[in-house]
Formats: sequence, C-alpha cells, structure tokens
Amino acid sequence: MYIYGKNILKEIIETRYPVKHIFFSSSKTERGSLKEIVEDVANLGYSYSFSPNEVLEKMALTSKHQGIVIDIGNDFKYENLDIIEGKEKLFLVILDQIQDPHNFGAIVRTSVAAGVDAIIIPKDNAVEVTPVVIKVSSGQIFKIPIIKVTNLSNTIETLKKKNVWVYGADVEGKPYYEIDWQGNICLVFGNEGNGIRKNVKNHCDELVSIPMFNNVESLNVSVSAGIILFEAKKQRTFNKQL
Amino acid sequence: MYIYGKNILKEIIETRYPVKHIFFSSSKTERGSLKEIVEDVANLGYSYSFSPNEVLEKMALTSKHQGIVIDIGNDFKYENLDIIEGKEKLFLVILDQIQDPHNFGAIVRTSVAAGVDAIIIPKDNAVEVTPVVIKVSSGQIFKIPIIKVTNLSNTIETLKKKNVWVYGADVEGKPYYEIDWQGNICLVFGNEGNGIRKNVKNHCDELVSIPMFNNVESLNVSVSAGIILFEAKKQRTFNKQL
Repeated sequence: MYIYGKNILKEIIETRYPVKHIFFSSSKTERGSLKEIVEDVANLGYSYSFSPNEVLEKMALTSKHQGIVIDIGNDFKYENLDIIEGKEKLFLVILDQIQDPHNFGAIVRTSVAAGVDAIIIPKDNAVEVTPVVIKVSSGQIFKIPIIKVTNLSNTIETLKKKNVWVYGADVEGKPYYEIDWQGNICLVFGNEGNGIRKNVKNHCDELVSIPMFNNVESLNVSVSAGIILFEAKKQRTFNKQL
Repeated sequence: MYIYGKNILKEIIETRYPVKHIFFSSSKTERGSLKEIVEDVANLGYSYSFSPNEVLEKMALTSKHQGIVIDIGNDFKYENLDIIEGKEKLFLVILDQIQDPHNFGAIVRTSVAAGVDAIIIPKDNAVEVTPVVIKVSSGQIFKIPIIKVTNLSNTIETLKKKNVWVYGADVEGKPYYEIDWQGNICLVFGNEGNGIRKNVKNHCDELVSIPMFNNVESLNVSVSAGIILFEAKKQRTFNKQL
C-alpha cells in the first residue's frame, strides 16, 4: 500500500511506525530539499531508495507526492483489544460500519486531537485503513491504535466487564452535554446512512444525542464525532462535568 | 443545475424554494411510490413533468436519483447582506475561501442545525453552491441564506458597525470554551490549507482556537466548525456562558 507526502512521513518518523520501504525523488534530493528527512530516515534504519519523479508519480497516482512515497506493506498494522489492558481512564471510540474513507480519516484525526486511546472497527462491512484514510487523517493515524474485531457486540460486552461505560450516538439519546464524560468511556458512532445497528445499540449502556434546530435530523458523522469527543475532552481536561 | 433525490425535494417543498423544473420518473410514478410528492409539487404550482429513468440518469449523472431530478436553474439564489437587517441576536458564519464542496456542504448542514442565521462567502476563489454542496448539505442549504460578497474585509467592518462581534478560528486564538457566545456574533473559518487570510484575520475582533492533544495542528474545517458552532449553540440555547 503506497502513501505519500512530507507530513505523513514526518508522522511515521515521529511514531517510529514500521514501514516496508521509502522512495525519495532523485531529482528533489539533488536539489537538497529532502536532505534532512532522508538523514532522519537513514538514522532510524528504515529501508529507502531514490527514484525519478515519473516513477513516484506512478506509485502515488498523483503528482502531489512531494518527492516522497512510502510503501507501508500489504496491510495496515491493526492491533487487538489486549492493547488497552491495564490502562486507566480509558477513552475509546467504536465505529460501527463506517463506509466513507473521508469520514474514517477525519474521525481518526479528531480522535487523536481529543486524546482518544484507541479506535475499534469491525472486521466486516466497514472501510479499512486505506491510503485515503491515512491522507485525510493527515498522518495522525500512526499515533493511535486501530483495533479490528470480529464482533462489536462481544467487544462492547468485554468493555463493560472492564468497567467501561459505553455510549451510542443516536437521535433518541440524552443530550451529549448532560453526560459525565469522566472515567472509562467508549463512544459508538454508526454508519453514515443508518446509524448504529440495532443489535449493537442494544448492547450500549446509554444513548446520547446532539440536539438540533430547524428539524435537521442528523449531521455528517465526522462532525457529530467532533462535537461529542471534544465535549468529552473538555471535561476530561478540567476533571469535572461542565 | 441538476440536483436529485427525495430528501432534497422535500426540503425544497418545505422551504418553498423556487426551482425551474422538476422531472419525475414515469416508471416509478406508475408504481405510485411518488404519488404523494407529485401531488405536493402540483399543489404548490411548481413546473414538472415525467421522463423515463434513462433520461433522469443522464441528467443526474447517477442512477441514485430516486425518480426525482430537479433543475434549479443556472445559479443558486444567493442573498446579499441586507437580509440580516433588523435581526437581533445575530449568529453568522463567514467562510474564507473554502475550496472543497464536501466541507462547504457539511458546514451548511451543521450551521442550520446550530441555528446560524446566514452564511457569508466571498465572490472569488471559493467553492460556490454546486450540486455536490447541496447533496452533502442533505438539502439543508434551502433553509439558510447564502450571502455572496465582493470583499470579506469590508463585510466584517460593516458587521462590526452593526455591533456584531467577529471571531476568527485560528490556532493562535483563545480557547473556544472561554468565550461568551451570546449576543451578535460572527464566526470566520478559513481555507482548508492556509486558514484565514492574514488581511481578513486582521479585521476580526478576536481569534479563537480549539486546544488539542498529541501535537495535532488542525482538524478538518467542517469538524472545527461543528465543535465551535455547537458550543455557541449550547450557550445560546441556555442563555448563559457555560
């Protein structure tokens, strides 16, 4: 899987994310603009090489590669639920069958900014981590574990046993600003068209909604996630329900 | 300009937005599924006709037209600044050179839900109201005036003379949750890559930021808008700074 761009490589370097290979532009390197980042890559022991811009363009499928194309291998490095073991004040996000890579990428970026510990996605019928998701997350995806699970309902039950309170974002819920977002929490956001599946919803401890004017029924899911996650972040920053 | 779909037509009917012509599927009509909405359209005096699905598909450029294609004419019906005259407790949004129709559409939808009175966009170097914007707004755009102006800096000065307090969303600003969002306010959101232009920023009364974890520098602009607009909405709903 090829991804590209300077900012994304910077995030990879910062998080030491293991990649298969990094291709730099031979022409740009000659001009020295990539000198520093090539040195960082070399010092960290990453595998790298130089190719003409035409070659990079074929891999990136765009001319906007900024002289950098990264092969992250066949698959993104997903984690499993063990990674949250022993952590306190858990702040988790579950995405139930999100389809649009732009939504997934934007929610990843927002989640990292809000201090979310991990994002959980189902194995089937959901968008995976694709180059578009990585791009839209502006490389922030390398800073957060993406956990892939077989059955979301089972996962929710496991979380509940770990004293995590699971909230589902749903039009029938309690206003999001009336909730105490401190402690161990998990927020579930549903599919763009249909929301959270009924069987998944039934496993949630509580439903939360965003009250709206003008008979608007719903917002874009990445906007809804931003509104609720940043309300939670605010409370968790100040250690009090506002 | 052709737009399509049942929900969008419903919003047009609800807001009595003037359109040029409405094309219904002749096949679907025979099956009766569009009967009710055709009656509404006829009762309101809209111009309409029936065409085979193949014709609708060519106009909508998709097969997902749901039997309804609407010709809204050559241009969207923009308003000018006079429309806010005499209104109290103004809640306005300015978009400074937003480029992506998905962002524009999502911000429109969010603004309507947050109770914003009007959205102001510049005449040049910004995405206009396109079929994609209308679609992504899920038809909510017909519920809010879109004001097109020649010069945003002049507009901001005009607003200030009307006692509107103008806030620019910027990484250097004061945290958005420390602001009193009551009264006459206008929020300025900048371009996806570069934020608010310097000369526009200089005209703002105050800058506001969204504090973030993990060295994230910015969020998708439609997510940022959602977070700040709904903080403002909350205060304005409860008539107090929270």
